[in-house]
Order: sequence, then structure tokens, then C-alpha cells
Amino acid sequence: MNADASTKRPGGRSGRVRAAVHDAAVALVAEHGADRVTLPAVARRAGVNSSTLYRRWGSVAALLADVAGHRDDAGAPPLAGDLRTDLERRATWTLTELSRPGGIAFFRAEVAPGIDERHAGLRECLDRVSARFRPALDAARERGEAPPSLERVLDRIVAPLYFRVVFSLPGTHDGYVRELVAELLDGPRGEG
Amino acid sequence: MNADASTKRPGGRSGRVRAAVHDAAVALVAEHGADRVTLPAVARRAGVNSSTLYRRWGSVAALLADVAGHRDDAGAPPLAGDLRTDLERRATWTLTELSRPGGIAFFRAEVAPGIDERHAGLRECLDRVSARFRPALDAARERGEAPPSLERVLDRIVAPLYFRVVFSLPGTHDGYVRELVAELLDGPRGEG
Repeated sequence: MNADASTKRPGGRSGRVRAAVHDAAVALVAEHGADRVTLPAVARRAGVNSSTLYRRWGSVAALLADVAGHRDDAGAPPLAGDLRTDLERRATWTLTELSRPGGIAFFRAEVAPGIDERHAGLRECLDRVSARFRPALDAARERGEAPPSLERVLDRIVAPLYFRVVFSLPGTHDGYVRELVAELLDGPRGEG
Repeated sequence: MNADASTKRPGGRSGRVRAAVHDAAVALVAEHGADRVTLPAVARRAGVNSSTLYRRWGSVAALLADVAGHRDDAGAPPLAGDLRTDLERRATWTLTELSRPGGIAFFRAEVAPGIDERHAGLRECLDRVSARFRPALDAARERGEAPPSLERVLDRIVAPLYFRVVFSLPGTHDGYVRELVAELLDGPRGEG
């Protein structure tokens, strides 16, 4: 069940260090904002030698991007066996992740021009968000339904959520998530 | 007609300096990438004293964000008098702007955590992209049609374009733009 999560955060010392460093980074970003986080501060908080952080991540931007790629391993809502419910839950979860303190900062870190060359990081971020929705679509297909493609879920649910959180658009809440899902599954329901 | 453009880039010395600095920044980003641009390099290219740039913009990030907010003043496609054509043209124009060298770098600069506090910049960027589509919607309303709301255009056309360019998703071209517009205006047309 959790094969994916276990490859991403393996047991053993290396996995424990990464988990401690990620937790420290998340806490510091939430407390001080992504601009003010430094590798030595993260190292202190995590109880890890800062040379480890420099060797393994090299920069705060790379660390935040790594966190962004891994922080959602846990907390996936269970599948309900109903496509609408599953898409709503996973979209709401995505919105919650993005909206919590520092949430969007991690996405911004991945997107920032400073790590332009790390296209692998962007790809990882996309894979991660795709992996949130794929199980819901796969389960629907296994039930013999014809769910929308993953690409349409990205266009119709994920992209608007990211756009709205990045631009701090008001009214981006659970009700809005349900509307996005309903419009994708049922088609347009009049103009807002 | 161009009241908006003229307030954004007024005549006179100040406007000429801004235009020269913006042009220099765009050229340098395209040539070297946003990571390698410095204020003194922009000043040299623009033939402006670099102290002016430090005083007026303060940082490369703030300059790039300012460019992002202003670079689309020119080049708006003319209104065709048909909502579908107008939305397609403006969406294609948006995609072209984002896809050209350095295009997405400017968006990334606005979104980057380093200028997190400049929410005004994000707001400006959103206003700018909204202003691209509003005339097409207003014109449709004046013809007695019932166009979608601007919010829906943002969710259904703009957000997927930005998302796909940021994540370098393949297949993001004019045909895709036409599909986004068609789906918004006509409803779903089968699953991709």
C-alpha cells in the first residue's frame, strides 16, 4: 500500500535525517517565512550537522524544493469508493496543504527562477500532485466507470487551485473545490 | 482607448527610463536567464546610471516583477467582435508571452518567495492578465450576449495555461488553447 511513501522516506539513518530536516524546514518557514530560513538554522533545529545539509541539499532553495516534493507523503485521505467524493477530498487536501503556513512558499521555491535548472524538481512536484489524484481515477476505472483523464483533472482542478492560492484570490475554500469537481464531472451549471 | 497603457508608461523622461530599463531587462533575461541578471548589467545595457535602478527598483526581483506587470501593454490583439475568436486570440497571446524566452521567468520572479511581501506585485500581475480578457467579455455583453464571468475565464483558461507553462507540460500549443476556449463556451466534448 505504502510502497511509494517508503521509497521516498526510507527507514534508517538517512531517512531519519531527511525527516528531521524536512520537519525543521517546515517549522522555520511557518514561523519566519521562507525568506528568512538558512541552512544552519535548519540544521540547528533538526539537531544535524550543517555540513550534512550543505552536502546533501546545497542551498535553501533546493531544500525547500525537496520538502515540497515530499511533504505530502502522509495524510492522503482514504478512498471512499465514489469518484466525486474522492476528487473532492483530494482537492480539499491539496488546497489545505497549499493554504497552510508556508504551504505556498514551498511551491514558490520550486518555481522560483533561482532553481530554474532544477527542472527535475518541477517534474517531481508535478508527479507528486498527480499521484494525489491518480488513485481516485484508477479506482473509478476499476469499478468500470469512465473517469476524466489525469490531464483534465490537472487543468480543471489542480491548476485553478494553485493559481488562486498563488494570487491569494478570495473565495478559495471547500465550497469552491466542490464546484470545480462538480463542473468537471457534471458540466457547466450556469455562470457565476 | 489606451488610457491604461498611457498611465502605465507615461511619456517624459521617467517613462523613457522605465521603458529602456524594461527593454534591457527583457533582453538580458532572454540572453542569460533570470538568475544571471544584475542591476548594474541592466543599467549598462539601458544606458542609465545604476544608482537610478537601485533607487527606483531596489533589487532585480522587484525590477523583474515590475517588468512582468507592464510588459504586455503593447501587442493586444484587436477585438474581432466574436467572443470565441477574441478569447482564443487573447489566450494564444497570453501563451505566447509566457512561452517566449524569459516569459515565465518574469512570472516566477513575481511568485518567488523573495518578494513575498510584495503582494501588490502579485495583485498587479493578476490585474494585468485580467485586463487582457475583460475587453472581450465586455464587448460580448455589449452585444447582448451572456459571456462567462472573468473569474471563470481565469479558472478555465488562464490558470491551466500558467500551470502548464510553469511545469513545462508538453502539448501546450494553440490547438490546446482552442480546446480550453471551446470547453468553456460549449461544455465538455468527451474525455481526452
